[in-house]
Amino acid sequence: MFSVTVRDHMMIAHSFRGEVFGPAQRLHGATYVVDATFRRLTLDDDNLVVDIGRAARELAAVLSELSYRNLDDEAALAGMNTSTEALAQVVADRLAERVQAGALGDGGRKLVGLAVTLHESHIAWATYERAL
Amino acid sequence: MFSVTVRDHMMIAHSFRGEVFGPAQRLHGATYVVDATFRRLTLDDDNLVVDIGRAARELAAVLSELSYRNLDDEAALAGMNTSTEALAQVVADRLAERVQAGALGDGGRKLVGLAVTLHESHIAWATYERAL
Amino acid sequence: MFSVTVRDHMMIAHSFRGEVFGPAQRLHGATYVVDATFRRLTLDDDNLVVDIGRAARELAAVLSELSYRNLDDEAALAGMNTSTEALAQVVADRLAERVQAGALGDGGRKLVGLAVTLHESHIAWATYERAL
Amino acid sequence: MFSVTVRDHMMIAHSFRGEVFGPAQRLHGATYVVDATFRRLTLDDDNLVVDIGRAARELAAVLSELSYRNLDDEAALAGMNTSTEALAQVVADRLAERVQAGALGDGGRKLVGLAVTLHESHIAWATYERAL
Amino acid sequence: MFSVTVRDHMMIAHSFRGEVFGPAQRLHGATYVVDATFRRLTLDDDNLVVDIGRAARELAAVLSELSYRNLDDEAALAGMNTSTEALAQVVADRLAERVQAGALGDGGRKLVGLAVTLHESHIAWATYERAL
Amino acid sequence: MFSVTVRDHMMIAHSFRGEVFGPAQRLHGATYVVDATFRRLTLDDDNLVVDIGRAARELAAVLSELSYRNLDDEAALAGMNTSTEALAQVVADRLAERVQAGALGDGGRKLVGLAVTLHESHIAWATYERAL
Repeated sequence: MFSVTVRDHMMIAHSFRGEVFGPAQRLHGATYVVDATFRRLTLDDDNLVVDIGRAARELAAVLSELSYRNLDDEAALAGMNTSTEALAQVVADRLAERVQAGALGDGGRKLVGLAVTLHESHIAWATYERAL
Repeated sequence: MFSVTVRDHMMIAHSFRGEVFGPAQRLHGATYVVDATFRRLTLDDDNLVVDIGRAARELAAVLSELSYRNLDDEAALAGMNTSTEALAQVVADRLAERVQAGALGDGGRKLVGLAVTLHESHIAWATYERAL
Repeated sequence: MFSVTVRDHMMIAHSFRGEVFGPAQRLHGATYVVDATFRRLTLDDDNLVVDIGRAARELAAVLSELSYRNLDDEAALAGMNTSTEALAQVVADRLAERVQAGALGDGGRKLVGLAVTLHESHIAWATYERAL
Repeated sequence: MFSVTVRDHMMIAHSFRGEVFGPAQRLHGATYVVDATFRRLTLDDDNLVVDIGRAARELAAVLSELSYRNLDDEAALAGMNTSTEALAQVVADRLAERVQAGALGDGGRKLVGLAVTLHESHIAWATYERAL
Repeated sequence: MFSVTVRDHMMIAHSFRGEVFGPAQRLHGATYVVDATFRRLTLDDDNLVVDIGRAARELAAVLSELSYRNLDDEAALAGMNTSTEALAQVVADRLAERVQAGALGDGGRKLVGLAVTLHESHIAWATYERAL
Repeated sequence: MFSVTVRDHMMIAHSFRGEVFGPAQRLHGATYVVDATFRRLTLDDDNLVVDIGRAARELAAVLSELSYRNLDDEAALAGMNTSTEALAQVVADRLAERVQAGALGDGGRKLVGLAVTLHESHIAWATYERAL
């Protein structure tokens, strides 16, 4: 099994609903350093899982829809606790849609899995992993 | 599959028995930077795998039982070569006991797996992974 | 010259005023991983610049006054563009006040300098350095 | 499941063939920071997956055959696009050969898997994972 | 004193002349992870040392003139051993020229110093520091 | 001003005397990831501050005298609280002696400064800086 990972980041504001969140119920924010991992069973004719430049551009495109925003005001995320793990799924699912729409070319359709990790600090991160 | 990871550390002394260990047969020590990863198939009602603060507190509690100690003198580890990989299992199993005793709440019982990585330096680390 | 550095973090929301900030004029947020460096010309009687545990507690106390907040609503920061470099100064000056008030003990008064670095992502950080 | 990882690096020149590679079709180079992960279901009599020193020596030996070279001129890689993911497989397969030849001792034959990650920069890396 | 640092990278091939370089006399290559630090005594009217986005674009522009190239063939570097420390100076001097030509706006002329660090691996890096 | 830094590590046991140390008064240990920085005003004829391989070997030699030991039993450190900052000085002074004895060649005598940083964990480190 092969995989390629690209890293980027986004900076967002948000708040949480629920006593478990303590002070994080207040409006605050986060930098998420985001790692997107693309998996393939075999390499393509160029010996690639995916072109790293192209993968980086797709990840940047997904993150640009979330970054520099207050997620509490985003219609697409209405009523959702945008925890690190939930946002990892949002990013992964949006990347998956792009891959399935051909954004990574025909080769992208040979990808078998996708994992997205969001690092919220130097001491905590979350991952969502899915099939493609 | 979702996961959340929290990072902490412990500082211990120990020695090893067996020629394979070379100079590490002498009493020496290590800082272990410890990553504990909790896995769940779906998120809970708060959109979490586990509350990061609560997970961090449980990891800190487990590490406080080992840190600032000479592991050669710990009754619970008597006769054991406390290699990085063996200690990863000790930490994981103690965390698992806490989870099963309800330390992470009812949601903790929905966790399906746990992985613990101990980084012994910038160039070596070990992981133990188990079901929950 | 000796120095000791401790690392912690804070998670905040804020927005910027000024065209130079582009999309960062919108309400967004950041995790700042914060490094506080304490400098002394010679070590104290315990062979320390500062006790690491004590330094970490003071840094945590300063960060707890800022973390999990929307800095746009903080009276102490009213009318201020809370850029990474400006916040580095805020944190450093508040730490310096604590040191000068004796929070690090008598030894703290022998400190000659303080530097605070705020990492806003894996690709950008800022530092403010001052005398004590 | 247990694993142990050791890190080393190599510095190589190479070029790629194929329009997808853009400017990387020119002769350029890379530092690959290489992580080799060895997996075992249970620990050996010394409580190890593999001796870290021995694993590090084998990894260094494999990398010394590639480092400080122009991979375009290596007979063993003739006609191959030496992408990060393809090189991860080269390193993993050469390590596997050594393990199977007994380089890690009898215990090495109990290893069940091997993963090799090549970090080409702070924002991109690739992994190849195989059975042993 | 304030500073802001931005990180980027370049991937190059080169070789060295001189016995001290051992195997690095052969054509090989490196990824340099590059940190550029800009220093100012006071902040500008926007509370900045330099706009991070603008600083990142200037650094990227300088690196694009070197990246994906064999430095042995670059006329501007003819006859030069392109060691990590020497390249740090090349990058710093080219950035300084851009700053002095106004690439960072009028505020850029208030910068007092510039430091460039090139990381050649996880275990070695070099810095060149100069006035502006 | 130019500098070159090399990284290595050591693993030691020790204990501290003094109430300020709390639980660290017990025998425990640490991995110190050690960065040694060599400074020169100008480059030598090979365009180097110091040969990275040679610098790495000298650092390794100094660390091998401390690593895999209980520092409480080292005659050379008798009666000394081997805090991170104090050990940074020990490593720096021993490196300086080697440089002054010619271990880095004639060029080593042109070095003007040396800094040694010991990272005791992901959240704390200390530096000692001296002239040469």
